[in-house]
Amino acid sequence: MKDFTFYNPTRIEFGREKEKNIGQYIKDYRNKKVLLVYGSERIKRDGLFEKVANSLKENNIEFVELGGVVSNPLLSKVYEGIKIAKEEQVDAVLGVGGGSVLDSVKAIAAGAKYDGDVWDFFIFKAQVQDALAVFSVMTLAATGSEMNPGGVVMNDETKEKFVLLAPQLYPKVSVVNPELMATVSKDYLAYSAVDIFAHCLDLYFTAKYLPLYNCMLIEAILKTVMRTTTILMENPNDYNAKAEFAWASTMALNGNTLPGVEGNSYDTHLIEHALSALYNIAHGAGLSIVLPAWMRWYKENNLAQFERFAKEIFGLNTAEEGINKLEAWFKEIGSPVTLEEANIPKSEIPAIVDNVYNMAKTWQMDTLYTEEQIAEVLELA
Amino acid sequence: MKDFTFYNPTRIEFGREKEKNIGQYIKDYRNKKVLLVYGSERIKRDGLFEKVANSLKENNIEFVELGGVVSNPLLSKVYEGIKIAKEEQVDAVLGVGGGSVLDSVKAIAAGAKYDGDVWDFFIFKAQVQDALAVFSVMTLAATGSEMNPGGVVMNDETKEKFVLLAPQLYPKVSVVNPELMATVSKDYLAYSAVDIFAHCLDLYFTAKYLPLYNCMLIEAILKTVMRTTTILMENPNDYNAKAEFAWASTMALNGNTLPGVEGNSYDTHLIEHALSALYNIAHGAGLSIVLPAWMRWYKENNLAQFERFAKEIFGLNTAEEGINKLEAWFKEIGSPVTLEEANIPKSEIPAIVDNVYNMAKTWQMDTLYTEEQIAEVLELA
Repeated sequence: MKDFTFYNPTRIEFGREKEKNIGQYIKDYRNKKVLLVYGSERIKRDGLFEKVANSLKENNIEFVELGGVVSNPLLSKVYEGIKIAKEEQVDAVLGVGGGSVLDSVKAIAAGAKYDGDVWDFFIFKAQVQDALAVFSVMTLAATGSEMNPGGVVMNDETKEKFVLLAPQLYPKVSVVNPELMATVSKDYLAYSAVDIFAHCLDLYFTAKYLPLYNCMLIEAILKTVMRTTTILMENPNDYNAKAEFAWASTMALNGNTLPGVEGNSYDTHLIEHALSALYNIAHGAGLSIVLPAWMRWYKENNLAQFERFAKEIFGLNTAEEGINKLEAWFKEIGSPVTLEEANIPKSEIPAIVDNVYNMAKTWQMDTLYTEEQIAEVLELA
Repeated sequence: MKDFTFYNPTRIEFGREKEKNIGQYIKDYRNKKVLLVYGSERIKRDGLFEKVANSLKENNIEFVELGGVVSNPLLSKVYEGIKIAKEEQVDAVLGVGGGSVLDSVKAIAAGAKYDGDVWDFFIFKAQVQDALAVFSVMTLAATGSEMNPGGVVMNDETKEKFVLLAPQLYPKVSVVNPELMATVSKDYLAYSAVDIFAHCLDLYFTAKYLPLYNCMLIEAILKTVMRTTTILMENPNDYNAKAEFAWASTMALNGNTLPGVEGNSYDTHLIEHALSALYNIAHGAGLSIVLPAWMRWYKENNLAQFERFAKEIFGLNTAEEGINKLEAWFKEIGSPVTLEEANIPKSEIPAIVDNVYNMAKTWQMDTLYTEEQIAEVLELA
């Protein structure tokens, strides 16, 4: 078992109508002026923006706004946010939205306290020393972003989708109200479920030492996600299903699956980031294409664990049966499982391999796979 | 699913030789003078005290000492600690030991910043407003105390064993080095395993709503504890077994099993505290007596969950088989399962019931059980 430091100071306020207290939560941390970041104008139509704005006003917290964050969030929008944050001298950034909004918020929070180009943090040219306080009201559960110190942003110019990580970026408080997920489409529900599976399975299969506790914790997350996704496909208003789904998604990427694990890597995420960067498909859709292919390619390296997966998650006997069943489930909930379904022709594979390999080098992960091996995985997709 | 706040800011430094950095960790939080609290003089003989003292000196952290904390820690020792902490104007309290040491440390940390009697906090006469910073180096994993804001102390005069809870008492940093557990006797290993089981099973069986995630998380903890205890009974030096045991014990009582759970209570702990308060037996030994008895008494209230327990933990079919097997396992690892084995005669039952009921009233839990019902459970033991 590997030595580790475990530290996660984010306070989660989970439950019905908690967004109405966001002003109070921000006041608890003595912040006075926030940049409120969001995606589409939907939150103005459905009343969420007003609830949040009222809570800020009631607690005498000033705010300025930045809307228009898109899925696969863009560096150009982050620059815009940093400019406003500096000009308006805000002391906190509040995201109201899903993972992409919170990714952008974290980059803005780090960039606003830095004199250079915020992209420096993504390419290891600089380390975050200080950041504005981060707060969030989540409308979509999938990324774990509400309780971790990471953010993924795409450089619009270079088409690199890279990660920013710094302990200063743990949100102070994140509101998770499962009722706010009611407006999530079935497509995005499926993509979210796939994303959670990928966060867990990369670790589950690649770890050289996986404590029993972590192994079973991951199985708990996967079983919760499968059960609740199935319920929500039928009845999107089932509160308990939404709530259990949301908490499982937080626990999938907030550090709880990691303590003591040795030698794991995030292979499918690495490959997928190239797909969504190059073809602007949803991250979850890209993952459901890459994951079963990668599992088939990788399974002989850790066959016993693939057999355990088949047995514990699906009650099946062989590794191959487990992978087939997972792929079938992704199809059933409406997420694509081949490059073809996402309209990405086979001729694009070399371009994808280039992008992946470039990213792997930046992360010093290029020793893990050769370009040929990445191409092999993609051929299987 | 119940609304909840999840917040646990403790930093865990887990692994080999981490105690050598304790001075640095304390410096990270800008503390300058600590009261170092410990139990027996063993830590001076085995070199742990010297390692800790050297690390404090290297980091220019002054310290004063207080040894002699005993199992079922006493309020009189806490008063002694508060007096020293005030006189010496320390700004932090560092516990080096097991659960009892850390219980005492938390009470001292709260009492040193309070003008009244620290016992006020235990009987709900006052609320903690401020506390000295808490740090720990753990030598025994069982109580979860290293990552929670609670402490249990016994009032020597009234024989009440009560609980103190306040968010200010989360340790800033706790060192968990599984190698320091090497000197734990087989008896205490067994008592620790039982304690973890009880922390989990009270919740597992009494919850009116238990999310699947929490249910499986508890099963992950129990299976880890069973597997590693069995290994450690044979080979106390198996590092990975010690490490997996230690982390499971932290996760059993640091808040992770609770989010979203509705309507649970800590029945067996309530009853056991009377046993260890009145007869000074080890807390874990008391629990292995109370737990199977309570399970037999309670099982019809939640039969499906008792059947799940039998199946998931032992691969058995009925509730009764599961309880019998658990009781047999407690025996096998050397923890008593009847009052008789602990030399507590049946004639003592009324005295125990009195003590339990008095505690239940203080905690406003007296609506849960009548005195007759508590006596019924004890008769089964």
